[in-house]
Amino acid sequence: MQITDLDTPAVLIDLDKLEQNIQRMASFAKAQRVNLRPHIKTHKIPQIAQLQLRAGAIGITCQKLGEAEIMAASGLDDILITYPIIGEHKLNRLTQLKQRAKVCTVLDSEEAMAPLAARMQQEELQHEVMIEVNTGLNRCGVLPGEPVLALVQRLPQYPSLKLRGIFTHEGHAYNFPNLEERERVVMKAADEMKRTALLLREHGIACEVISVGSTPSAMIIGRAEGITEMRPGNYVFCDRVQLKLGSCREDQIAASVLATVISRPAPDRAIIDAGNKTMCTDNAADFNNTIGVVVGRAELTFHYSSEEHGRITSKTGRIDLKVGDRVRLLPNHACGMMNMHDEVYGVRGEVVEEVWKVAARGKVK
Amino acid sequence: MQITDLDTPAVLIDLDKLEQNIQRMASFAKAQRVNLRPHIKTHKIPQIAQLQLRAGAIGITCQKLGEAEIMAASGLDDILITYPIIGEHKLNRLTQLKQRAKVCTVLDSEEAMAPLAARMQQEELQHEVMIEVNTGLNRCGVLPGEPVLALVQRLPQYPSLKLRGIFTHEGHAYNFPNLEERERVVMKAADEMKRTALLLREHGIACEVISVGSTPSAMIIGRAEGITEMRPGNYVFCDRVQLKLGSCREDQIAASVLATVISRPAPDRAIIDAGNKTMCTDNAADFNNTIGVVVGRAELTFHYSSEEHGRITSKTGRIDLKVGDRVRLLPNHACGMMNMHDEVYGVRGEVVEEVWKVAARGKVK
Repeated sequence: MQITDLDTPAVLIDLDKLEQNIQRMASFAKAQRVNLRPHIKTHKIPQIAQLQLRAGAIGITCQKLGEAEIMAASGLDDILITYPIIGEHKLNRLTQLKQRAKVCTVLDSEEAMAPLAARMQQEELQHEVMIEVNTGLNRCGVLPGEPVLALVQRLPQYPSLKLRGIFTHEGHAYNFPNLEERERVVMKAADEMKRTALLLREHGIACEVISVGSTPSAMIIGRAEGITEMRPGNYVFCDRVQLKLGSCREDQIAASVLATVISRPAPDRAIIDAGNKTMCTDNAADFNNTIGVVVGRAELTFHYSSEEHGRITSKTGRIDLKVGDRVRLLPNHACGMMNMHDEVYGVRGEVVEEVWKVAARGKVK
Repeated sequence: MQITDLDTPAVLIDLDKLEQNIQRMASFAKAQRVNLRPHIKTHKIPQIAQLQLRAGAIGITCQKLGEAEIMAASGLDDILITYPIIGEHKLNRLTQLKQRAKVCTVLDSEEAMAPLAARMQQEELQHEVMIEVNTGLNRCGVLPGEPVLALVQRLPQYPSLKLRGIFTHEGHAYNFPNLEERERVVMKAADEMKRTALLLREHGIACEVISVGSTPSAMIIGRAEGITEMRPGNYVFCDRVQLKLGSCREDQIAASVLATVISRPAPDRAIIDAGNKTMCTDNAADFNNTIGVVVGRAELTFHYSSEEHGRITSKTGRIDLKVGDRVRLLPNHACGMMNMHDEVYGVRGEVVEEVWKVAARGKVK
């Protein structure tokens, strides 16, 4: 099958670029002797997770149990879920999931610790946990140092739980487009993680794993002494956000959307069959209300428009596209874009080599 | 099953409010003697489309062939697709679909007209079309008056096609929060539609249907003399956008998200298990970077945060929510939010009466 045989809108994954992106991060991690545990939230596709493992990843990271269930069902058997497991439904599902895969979960409160421990004890299971540390994103997580120690010191009360280590998502790196500033902020997060691990060790607590993660910080924090694991996700595809941050070149972005011109109602306007529901509106405001760009056509602007329509205008005032023409679009946020689609196409040149189900799409539970 | 039995995040549809919203629009349309052909893009659920038909709708509107295919497979047999059908794949699918349902499609160019006609002729099918008129949204559509006449006068060249009428989506109504201004803009659109139909009739062309659509304009344009059909969609659920426009009261919003507090990392911050992938980021910028509100808790702010985390802060500086507590959230854009989910729950009071598959979710092709 050729790309020309595909109906639109269709998500295309450039397999050459995908493989190069996977290899680049794997080689970096190997050179730095840091374990790579990529986050699958970007692609949501078991086959791509397998490519990451074959390149050297030690396991995968998921955000939600539903994603982990899908990955485990496809044979991925070493999964870190970087999300507190709260409530009876999820504890039930976690104990089920542990029969299929080695699963570690995370927590940042005793309110999450006690019910998890009780359920594991009831099921006569041992369970590894990691403590989330807030190094500046101000989302979940305990503050570094003493607050982490205080929470970890509660663990011996719960013999069904075992500490694997500490982790952070230094996602505030996204707020620093300037590389020097970003380096400063990210290395501060690395220092806080190492300082916290040292404090635990001083108190006789084994803290084997110090885990960090985010694509724009990976090549910085991966060089820090003492970091044992990193969990970047977006690097497999990259997108306009990564491009803006300098984490990739435009020709390294592996995920795009193929769309068709459906109307040419005015000389300065073309309408395509890809809108919010195809591209997603993530970060639209950061890109002047655009939800993507047209590949190879810098003079065109692709406006955030409506659910099924994209509005393309031109800086020149005239557009040479006609009804039926096809364009390729790069998304602002590849993870969000992937989440809109049930299947995507792996392409090499003009040939469609793979039809992949986005199996973990929408698994928000 | 009770709401307390549901895992989170979960989309709840308040059935009382849904039924009242459906009834209110149906009664209005009946009183105005305007046909109601609701757009299913909001709910994407055949069972809700059936409720709309039972309340008096004459048929449904879909945006994409994929949505129409799902609706037809569920027995909905009078479908207007308000989207030009471009390309061989879609022409193939349209001819298939016509075997199951009475389908009318739209166009705004001879580039769309000629291949559609050729395919219908080849299949020995007759096909009804409507001409899209641009009354100010500046998306698809021919300008009112002479340009519409010129396009319609091409139709006799294509005997397989028959004109049903003209339609517009006066979606620019969304840009006018002030009701008086909105009335002026919307009634101008109605006038342009009537003037265009009159011009066609003066040239001996039957133009049976004058169709308009949009929830914030429905109760205005539905009163205009000569309008024969309207196609609002969002009114079944409503959302924060409609609330801002005064198209509904907050207690009429029928779709909400049930979420759980998963972390209380600071006195002034609660983290819930609903983020961008649960709520969607549509219109976040218009609502000061929030992607929803917490029902009944006006002092709380629900920030646009990240894919699986929502960050709640309080104007008081302190939050009384604890880990495991549940909150209900109203979305900015109900249609976009529905598109993130595979299933939703129809509730009456605390009882879950329906589990509905969002069957037309993601059908962007």
